[in-house]
Amino acid sequence: MRFTTERRLDDGVLEREFTLGDVPGYLWTPASASPSAPVPLILLGHPPLGLSRMYPRLVARARHAAAEGFAGATIELPGSGDRPSWPALDQARADLRRTMAAGEPVDDEIVDALVLPLVDRAVPEWRAALDALLSLPEVGGPVGYSGGVISVGVRLAVVEPRIVAAGLFAGSLVPRVIFEEARRVTIPLHVLLQWDDEGNDRQSALDLFDAFGSAEKTLHANMGGHTGVPEFAGEGVARFFARHLR
Amino acid sequence: MRFTTERRLDDGVLEREFTLGDVPGYLWTPASASPSAPVPLILLGHPPLGLSRMYPRLVARARHAAAEGFAGATIELPGSGDRPSWPALDQARADLRRTMAAGEPVDDEIVDALVLPLVDRAVPEWRAALDALLSLPEVGGPVGYSGGVISVGVRLAVVEPRIVAAGLFAGSLVPRVIFEEARRVTIPLHVLLQWDDEGNDRQSALDLFDAFGSAEKTLHANMGGHTGVPEFAGEGVARFFARHLR
Repeated sequence: MRFTTERRLDDGVLEREFTLGDVPGYLWTPASASPSAPVPLILLGHPPLGLSRMYPRLVARARHAAAEGFAGATIELPGSGDRPSWPALDQARADLRRTMAAGEPVDDEIVDALVLPLVDRAVPEWRAALDALLSLPEVGGPVGYSGGVISVGVRLAVVEPRIVAAGLFAGSLVPRVIFEEARRVTIPLHVLLQWDDEGNDRQSALDLFDAFGSAEKTLHANMGGHTGVPEFAGEGVARFFARHLR
Repeated sequence: MRFTTERRLDDGVLEREFTLGDVPGYLWTPASASPSAPVPLILLGHPPLGLSRMYPRLVARARHAAAEGFAGATIELPGSGDRPSWPALDQARADLRRTMAAGEPVDDEIVDALVLPLVDRAVPEWRAALDALLSLPEVGGPVGYSGGVISVGVRLAVVEPRIVAAGLFAGSLVPRVIFEEARRVTIPLHVLLQWDDEGNDRQSALDLFDAFGSAEKTLHANMGGHTGVPEFAGEGVARFFARHLR
């Protein structure tokens, strides 16, 4: 892990860009973080739109995490942003767009081609980032995962024992294999669902919530479309992590 | 409204029992409430099990409300507690129990007989209580309604313009006429759903949530049975009222 930039935000949060191999990322740590007082960590997931486009929302989430005393970190997804393009993924996206534009049903084959390769590549990268982040003296545990592509969150929750709680954003383009993995998730979950999400099928999202094996799982459904999550719902996510990471 | 008892709880909350006609009730006001600083009010709904049996849970909710600076008040439901028995309601309950014990489907007729007379009698009583409570100089507005029989909450939300926000507990024994009234509810709603509630059908509860006409409505679903609402879910209700009654 190599830090490439470092700056102090106005609220005292230290923002550092890093690269881990060829994967760029960000680490935000609260002013309080130090080797003698290492802080818990939230991995900040995001959709595959590129870190620079997602930066405003990510830094806002990181500032909220820092206000609770937590570090936040994120990495670029494969095929996104400045990382090498990934023709198979681009093709899968084009297939999805064409299918939806034609009003045809999105079948398993399209969903699998779109999501599974991304999960298979992204999850080991997140785990490698976690190794590197936890080796920093000012970053401790426990670790939470928040947001982003829900299938990535599900896989991480199953395979990465250092993640003790996850806040997920309900999505319906979930491969069957991920749906089955959801039954094996046992950590506390906080799931946000936008009730009228134009890009997601509500029933699929409810079925996935039902499938999770966790004894503590909470669904917060709110009105509005995909990007209309109300501010108070974000506060609910913050309180979930405060309960589980402190 | 005639106060019959008065005592100060250890946290400074003033607890008063009252009767309004032949309907007994409780009013809890925070120490801060005074004619020069009247407080908002939360009407504390409850299931028809009798006020004395419900008292521990009601006073706990009232203390939480008082800690936020709100008064809490409740009245006995018709046919419950020390109020005259109501043979038709007792008959409807016996019919429901027998049907459920036999594993037979609970049809509309049973639900209507069980719920509609209760709603028709209880709602005017809650409104009369509201008249009396708001005439007290130390109780102002705005007014919220919380919990209890969801059909009572729906009817109140439709007919009582002084109620500006409602926290409801999802139930499935909802008559069709109440389901239709739900579409006319426009105030902000916060609905709690116990995902594995043995007494409620989950899909019916989700359908009712979907039917509400409110632009701001939030569903908080948690694991566990009817009485297993986690403590953090109660805190979510408190924050909902804090947003809307302050």
